Amino acid sequence: VPILSLSKGVEQGTGLRMTEVVADVLPGHRRDRIGVLTGPNLAREVALGQPAATVVAIDDADAAAALQTVFMTATFRVYTNPDVVGCEIAGALKNVIALAAGIAHGLGYGDNTKAALITRGLAELARLGISLGGDPLTFSGLAGMGDLVATCTSEKSRNRTVGVALGQGRELDDIVAEMKMVAEGVKSTQAVLELAGRQGVEMPIAEQVGAVLYEGRTPAEIVPALMLRQAKPELRGMR
Amino acid sequence: VPILSLSKGVEQGTGLRMTEVVADVLPGHRRDRIGVLTGPNLAREVALGQPAATVVAIDDADAAAALQTVFMTATFRVYTNPDVVGCEIAGALKNVIALAAGIAHGLGYGDNTKAALITRGLAELARLGISLGGDPLTFSGLAGMGDLVATCTSEKSRNRTVGVALGQGRELDDIVAEMKMVAEGVKSTQAVLELAGRQGVEMPIAEQVGAVLYEGRTPAEIVPALMLRQAKPELRGMR
Repeated sequence: VPILSLSKGVEQGTGLRMTEVVADVLPGHRRDRIGVLTGPNLAREVALGQPAATVVAIDDADAAAALQTVFMTATFRVYTNPDVVGCEIAGALKNVIALAAGIAHGLGYGDNTKAALITRGLAELARLGISLGGDPLTFSGLAGMGDLVATCTSEKSRNRTVGVALGQGRELDDIVAEMKMVAEGVKSTQAVLELAGRQGVEMPIAEQVGAVLYEGRTPAEIVPALMLRQAKPELRGMR
Repeated sequence: VPILSLSKGVEQGTGLRMTEVVADVLPGHRRDRIGVLTGPNLAREVALGQPAATVVAIDDADAAAALQTVFMTATFRVYTNPDVVGCEIAGALKNVIALAAGIAHGLGYGDNTKAALITRGLAELARLGISLGGDPLTFSGLAGMGDLVATCTSEKSRNRTVGVALGQGRELDDIVAEMKMVAEGVKSTQAVLELAGRQGVEMPIAEQVGAVLYEGRTPAEIVPALMLRQAKPELRGMR
């Protein structure tokens, strides 16, 4: 039988993706039948029956078609994508950009800044994901852009909420102490930056989020650091 | 000297892009030095000095580099992209999807539905844009995704506002009569559908927006029409 991961993130310490963890604990299982279901699927809204779309990413085409049929309902639309690596990486990295989008909102910035951060944030996630074997187009799909848009614009996103409080000038320790749930981007930004360093991928937005989280840089200080970088071609590193 | 278009949309009747109109009225001008500046740039926020990013798309590399330097400021970050066709098409088509995002909001749907509409809306814009000669990756950049995210999530978007009112059950004629400014998607959806028909490109979201605008379909009726289509691979028609 195929196995689908429903978790986002990478294993701390090893950096393994969740399907790699599954393969690790089930060494006899066919690798092409281990996949992931991911996308902009806030559980509460799915449960309310609001229209939502998702991606099933799995190598084996027969398994993909079968799983698509299993999960498809009148309000939950399932697409297939053979790119397991890209779909998993996109879900694991999005929280870093959600922190950045929250910081911008907390600083009082509006729709232009948010759209620029989401778009350029996706570009740096895609550069890292492509370096790890992901398909460039996956990042503009539901697992990439879709999940990023939901996470960066939803009031329900915990990582965005932490970013907003940081942007308003509050201290990280105080914000985290008050939260009932974990905002995983606070920890995972470090892992993302280490991964980017190993892969030789430039991630300017993630670096500045890291500077706020771990080095005491203020949100206002990171704006010029991002805006005054050398001018670039838009699609650099994307092919 | 290079010429940059700052307008979004296509000419009614001819379907020409704005840089094609420029070339038409200035037949002696070098085509590779006619370009476009586009992206998520709500004028009011740019004027307030909020951080924003934009794209200059022009064939000639020297002109692109020179224009990048001219427009770059501490709060306005300029990227270059040689794909004039893709950047212009993306800006011209986004209002159709903004109407759809507004309708979903007016129907009471939340972040999952919005993210799915933006992502699958971008996929259908990209299919049409690629058929007209655009670069697939342009659509995940500032002119495509960036502008679409801003337009579909901003309270300041006129097309989104019309969509919200439609979703709440108001009549199109009443909505349009009350507005001081033009919501161009109300007219341009027709042109987009005609273009898609000529190019043989399927645009299910645009079709349903058209059904609401021109055929009296109610917003509630178009939800099952979109959700119950045959299941598909995510990246179909993208390469």
